[in-house]
Amino acid sequence: MPDPRELVAELYADFASELADAARPIIAPRFRQPLEVEAKQDGSPVTIADREAEQALRGMIEQRHPQHGIIGEEFEDVRTDAEWVWALDPIDGTGAFISGVPTFATLIALLHEGSPVLGIIDQPVLRERWIGAIFEGAPHRAEFAANGAIHQIHTSSTENLTKATGFATTPAMFRGDAADAWKRLAGRLGRVRYGIDAYAYGLLAMGRIDLVCEAQLKPWDYLALAPIVRAAGGEISDWEGEPLTASSGDRVLAAADRPLHRAALEVLRDGGRER
Amino acid sequence: MPDPRELVAELYADFASELADAARPIIAPRFRQPLEVEAKQDGSPVTIADREAEQALRGMIEQRHPQHGIIGEEFEDVRTDAEWVWALDPIDGTGAFISGVPTFATLIALLHEGSPVLGIIDQPVLRERWIGAIFEGAPHRAEFAANGAIHQIHTSSTENLTKATGFATTPAMFRGDAADAWKRLAGRLGRVRYGIDAYAYGLLAMGRIDLVCEAQLKPWDYLALAPIVRAAGGEISDWEGEPLTASSGDRVLAAADRPLHRAALEVLRDGGRER
Repeated sequence: MPDPRELVAELYADFASELADAARPIIAPRFRQPLEVEAKQDGSPVTIADREAEQALRGMIEQRHPQHGIIGEEFEDVRTDAEWVWALDPIDGTGAFISGVPTFATLIALLHEGSPVLGIIDQPVLRERWIGAIFEGAPHRAEFAANGAIHQIHTSSTENLTKATGFATTPAMFRGDAADAWKRLAGRLGRVRYGIDAYAYGLLAMGRIDLVCEAQLKPWDYLALAPIVRAAGGEISDWEGEPLTASSGDRVLAAADRPLHRAALEVLRDGGRER
Repeated sequence: MPDPRELVAELYADFASELADAARPIIAPRFRQPLEVEAKQDGSPVTIADREAEQALRGMIEQRHPQHGIIGEEFEDVRTDAEWVWALDPIDGTGAFISGVPTFATLIALLHEGSPVLGIIDQPVLRERWIGAIFEGAPHRAEFAANGAIHQIHTSSTENLTKATGFATTPAMFRGDAADAWKRLAGRLGRVRYGIDAYAYGLLAMGRIDLVCEAQLKPWDYLALAPIVRAAGGEISDWEGEPLTASSGDRVLAAADRPLHRAALEVLRDGGRER
């Protein structure tokens, strides 16, 4: 008889994919169409596509797994002390979505007792999907699905920071001490590029880039990324090196492997030494 | 009898599309594949995809229009004093291409007596193509082709800088006085985003964003952009407000319309006043 934990892992991974499938037809047809953009209280933009998609996904969770908790960008948290909690960001990179850049993503995470064990990054227009699962007692799984094919993915092996390509969405996300820390790290990296939000973590998981360092993220921005990066062989944490949970700070560092991650952490903290 | 200048415009636009068609099967299959990346003398990366694509396009021009000149990123200039000169950048955004971000582009420009009159921005993986033509004596043409459909495009109408969304590929492209000028302009804009190279000018031409400001560009980086932006109703120039030619400086400003362009120019020059 198979380990029941493997069955649970498979069941929930399938359900998460159904959620991502459901978001696509709500979001993709609105890409590059006239769309009213509202400013939320924190000044960040939101559209009807964000709200309708999250509402649809919440409805599916309530129906199929009414005992599970839900946290999301657009509506109130529910049952956050449940054993299983979903974290939803229907459109991560709303700015990209509004600007017509096809690198925004739907992010779906599942937390078990507070730790993210399943993550999806889905690009609804390009129909690209990264999925990562690190359920306890079940095999880890890191996949990229596009054009009807599913590929196993793995992070790169990059010798050191000076040969690494690192991404951040924008330098404006780093303020105060974070700005100094990012400046130190960016100065050490072989190549720095900006833009593309969560899409960068997908590229990291598939070995195309080596590092992503960001700040001012919300739990629904980063929780889905952790299982994908880790199942693909990478390392991801906050800037203190602590695992990501729903109550982590707003700063995230992901790298292709542990040594690169450690080297970057040291530079973020105090300048470190060249690895 | 139709104006012969219209026939020439049509002939060359068709040929430019053939060039872009020819580049796609050379570039797209190498996207996200293992690829040797070399550093050129100026430190910028180049791959076999860049070189093979430019070689193929140069061969087609030599065969069909042997009297035309050619300038391009990867090989020597030829016949630059010809009446008609092609400017080629097989992969603009090689960094994005290498990193697996599908916003790099093939850029093709045709200059008539030194001025760009035809431009193509082609995304080989997404199969998206912007084409703009401003031949003297022929109707202007601004189109976006994707998924088998061709759309007429037009820039946005944005009231002022504070409501505009502006792009630059990276803040690192602005050095010295350009860094100060960009900082002033970015501070005035409603929203600033980084990344995506020439793709941003396509989004500007189709009205999704309002402004692009860049520096450290080469002629083959910017010549294709001018006819697209202008045919779509926008304005594009160097930072002095002068039209772009093969001998322009390395700084480019594109905006959705003339008033917005003028307001941005003033801020770049001396801080200007809020429009």
